[in-house]
Amino acid sequence: MHKLRIVSYGLGPIGLRAASLVLERESLELVGAIDTADDKVGRDIAELLALAEPTGIRVERDARAALERLQPDALIHCTSSFLPAVKEQLLEAARLGIDVVSSTEEMLVPDLQHPELARELDQAARAGGATLVGTGINPGFAMDFMAVVASAVCRRVERVQCVRVVDAGTRRLPLQRKVGAGMSVEEFTERARGGGFGHIGMRESIALVSRGLGLQVDAIEQTLAPVVSERAHTTPFLTVAAGQVAGIRNLGAGKRGGETVVELDLSMYVGAPDPHDEVILEGEPRVHLRFEGGLPGDLATAAILVNTLPGVVEASPGLKTVLDLPPPRFRP
Amino acid sequence: MHKLRIVSYGLGPIGLRAASLVLERESLELVGAIDTADDKVGRDIAELLALAEPTGIRVERDARAALERLQPDALIHCTSSFLPAVKEQLLEAARLGIDVVSSTEEMLVPDLQHPELARELDQAARAGGATLVGTGINPGFAMDFMAVVASAVCRRVERVQCVRVVDAGTRRLPLQRKVGAGMSVEEFTERARGGGFGHIGMRESIALVSRGLGLQVDAIEQTLAPVVSERAHTTPFLTVAAGQVAGIRNLGAGKRGGETVVELDLSMYVGAPDPHDEVILEGEPRVHLRFEGGLPGDLATAAILVNTLPGVVEASPGLKTVLDLPPPRFRP
Repeated sequence: MHKLRIVSYGLGPIGLRAASLVLERESLELVGAIDTADDKVGRDIAELLALAEPTGIRVERDARAALERLQPDALIHCTSSFLPAVKEQLLEAARLGIDVVSSTEEMLVPDLQHPELARELDQAARAGGATLVGTGINPGFAMDFMAVVASAVCRRVERVQCVRVVDAGTRRLPLQRKVGAGMSVEEFTERARGGGFGHIGMRESIALVSRGLGLQVDAIEQTLAPVVSERAHTTPFLTVAAGQVAGIRNLGAGKRGGETVVELDLSMYVGAPDPHDEVILEGEPRVHLRFEGGLPGDLATAAILVNTLPGVVEASPGLKTVLDLPPPRFRP
Repeated sequence: MHKLRIVSYGLGPIGLRAASLVLERESLELVGAIDTADDKVGRDIAELLALAEPTGIRVERDARAALERLQPDALIHCTSSFLPAVKEQLLEAARLGIDVVSSTEEMLVPDLQHPELARELDQAARAGGATLVGTGINPGFAMDFMAVVASAVCRRVERVQCVRVVDAGTRRLPLQRKVGAGMSVEEFTERARGGGFGHIGMRESIALVSRGLGLQVDAIEQTLAPVVSERAHTTPFLTVAAGQVAGIRNLGAGKRGGETVVELDLSMYVGAPDPHDEVILEGEPRVHLRFEGGLPGDLATAAILVNTLPGVVEASPGLKTVLDLPPPRFRP
């Protein structure tokens, strides 16, 4: 069997976790790693993953040099949430004909907020013979892709509701910080005003669902509110006192003619009871799908990225969405 | 927008329901209907669907003549559960370059029971420029595709369990008959010995899951048992007395080295409590997915067939499985 040759580009928590999954898969071979952080460049990726044995793969700073030399089949790309920040990275891969699975949230529906950039990426990908796609657990699966997949059984879909409840207390510290856990309500409100909080990619999730199911959403709205803790919670990293912020509730609405046809309800806070993921399709039949216990964010995102690799390598060139590819699946 | 031109081939309950969905979709156009039943040939399909207005589409007996004349983009094919019985029908479509979405249960994994026939179909499809795929609610979605889709979030999958509980009392009469509702246990046992009962496609579901997730199943086993009613149930069509057969429980096991790694548990009986569909993946993470209330068999199968049409038209030629195509989705 030909192993797919993979480079990990961006070695933050998700990128590292994805790299470790690539290392353990029989069907994949990790051939390179790219990051610009001074404390990572030059080190064997085994050190960053706390593996007992070196891999022989050293972190490189110069992406172009690494990609030109390695010519991998595909990249796992985990460097930023925002498309303008990763434009040159993706164009470089596209020109070299290297397929990309990206965790960049705005890559889920690239033309939603960046239509010209998306056109440029698509042209470069077609010219270079590369396929580019963005995915993850959210956006990319729990609050969008699963709703679209569930619609397969439907004669009609009129309205979509997705609920995701995450107990932030079981997640890593940066995630707990990102949802404001342990802050006073005043501090949270101040920081929220500057756009400091909130899930990235909700607009893209709504757009994916709307386009996928032909719901013709013409306006997308979002609200963000702190969830205030009623009692003290202690996580491995911090303590949230009663009356402090435990995390966030982020609501997204996709509207058509003023009526909400896509509703996304995301709660991420320390101590959230009954974590779960849920999709409800109002239509014929009504579909009610539930992941008991919920889908674990970091692991699931890393797994989805890795599980999307074979599909992106087989797909025709261009800038794609997850709806254009066969569904990602676990393979050893 | 270019409407896809569709022919309905086979006008039993599922085929008719699928045809009615095609008629109501803006993106699809029903251009022909084929069946060999004397009471259907020559009639406007509107009569068979009890529509108020004629469609102008008359049921034709001669498939080849109809397909050669109409040259549709795709067929919805609902004529038989077994691949040898539909071989010539599919070869005809393949030679004419007409894509096919088939409800033939054995078409889910055609080479499982008919490797030579599958090879012949694949060659004809490639030569003719046609794409052929088999799907439905079960097999095709509830007990196989959904398990594969859910695995996207997994680092590892070691074991798959799918449970489907259908209250046969809410289904059509042929389905109630097919599960033996209202028979004595003796009668059921006698008929079961001749292979008269049981869900078709369980082997294919197990094979799809095993191949999709690399579980290397080397043996497939099935058991069928009657579910005996503890109290009387009356459906719109028949009555099941206490002590009579209410329906079936069909267990399927995919084994690797003697260990069950895929377990399918299908109950279809009159009065079944808590109808639902469930997928459990043992691995990392453990995934527990549940469709509350279950997925309605006939409507869901018709919808999946219709919702697969755009994907099969866009796909490259050949004999495919549902894992090769983008996920089917509702589109107006």
